Amino acid sequence: MGEAIIIACSSPPVVNTLVFPTPQDCEAAFYDAFESADLETMMAVWAEDEDVVCVHPAGPRLVGVDQVRESWRQIFASGPQLRFHIKDSQILRGMLLSIHSVLEHILVSGEPRPRGPIIATNIYLLTDHGWRMLAHHASPAPAQESVAPEARPAKLH
Amino acid sequence: MGEAIIIACSSPPVVNTLVFPTPQDCEAAFYDAFESADLETMMAVWAEDEDVVCVHPAGPRLVGVDQVRESWRQIFASGPQLRFHIKDSQILRGMLLSIHSVLEHILVSGEPRPRGPIIATNIYLLTDHGWRMLAHHASPAPAQESVAPEARPAKLH
Repeated sequence: MGEAIIIACSSPPVVNTLVFPTPQDCEAAFYDAFESADLETMMAVWAEDEDVVCVHPAGPRLVGVDQVRESWRQIFASGPQLRFHIKDSQILRGMLLSIHSVLEHILVSGEPRPRGPIIATNIYLLTDHGWRMLAHHASPAPAQESVAPEARPAKLH
Repeated sequence: MGEAIIIACSSPPVVNTLVFPTPQDCEAAFYDAFESADLETMMAVWAEDEDVVCVHPAGPRLVGVDQVRESWRQIFASGPQLRFHIKDSQILRGMLLSIHSVLEHILVSGEPRPRGPIIATNIYLLTDHGWRMLAHHASPAPAQESVAPEARPAKLH
């Protein structure tokens, strides 16, 4: 009986629990879920935390699991339409946090070539259930991804 | 003689070395330097690291101290023009990294009221010289900062 109880405790009846042993595994699952428009897998990527933050390109700041889930539900409503090529990753990994700055080259279904890159800052947190996404901040790069800051508006930083 | 050497070693002749004991101190110095268009203080805020990342609103991704410094030099060329009110901070602090999601309400010199908010993800790193900025990713929020993701473009995330 004692053993059975222990086994029961260590194997809770949770369905769709994914454990990502590295931040890179979590990031791969994030973009896989994005491409396949899989809401449940997408939300398994995110930390179950009221402090999660998501900023889609040109969108508002979304805070907390409920707002983040609702945004993905709407994005995924039209089904899989995007293919991602992630380039030029800059990664800084701490003990509990991992910061990834990446360029997303996105091929939209029906379009002949990828759109100009989206700059994304992806932040992962080591939780009791492996690495999870804590924040995703995405914004469009200028048409030509370049280092020339004179392309920016003059007055706003 | 021995004491003199020790004193010399512990007090290197470095000018303008600022030490920020907390991420909040570093963030306050970042926005103070921004408001006063003070390039040297701004660069004292940043980690001296080739992996630093800076994304100004609608700008490209800048990587490394040289690109980051050049962008601030250009932004500051016209002198102090901005006042910041930082609101709705979401902070997650780890041992060596601190993640701050903030809304920047910016009053531009000569304009009667603040512009719509800029969403900023600010990331700080604990270095041998206190906390320093590792990344700044800023992008404009929609005209009305809201949680309604339907304001986003339909196809891009």
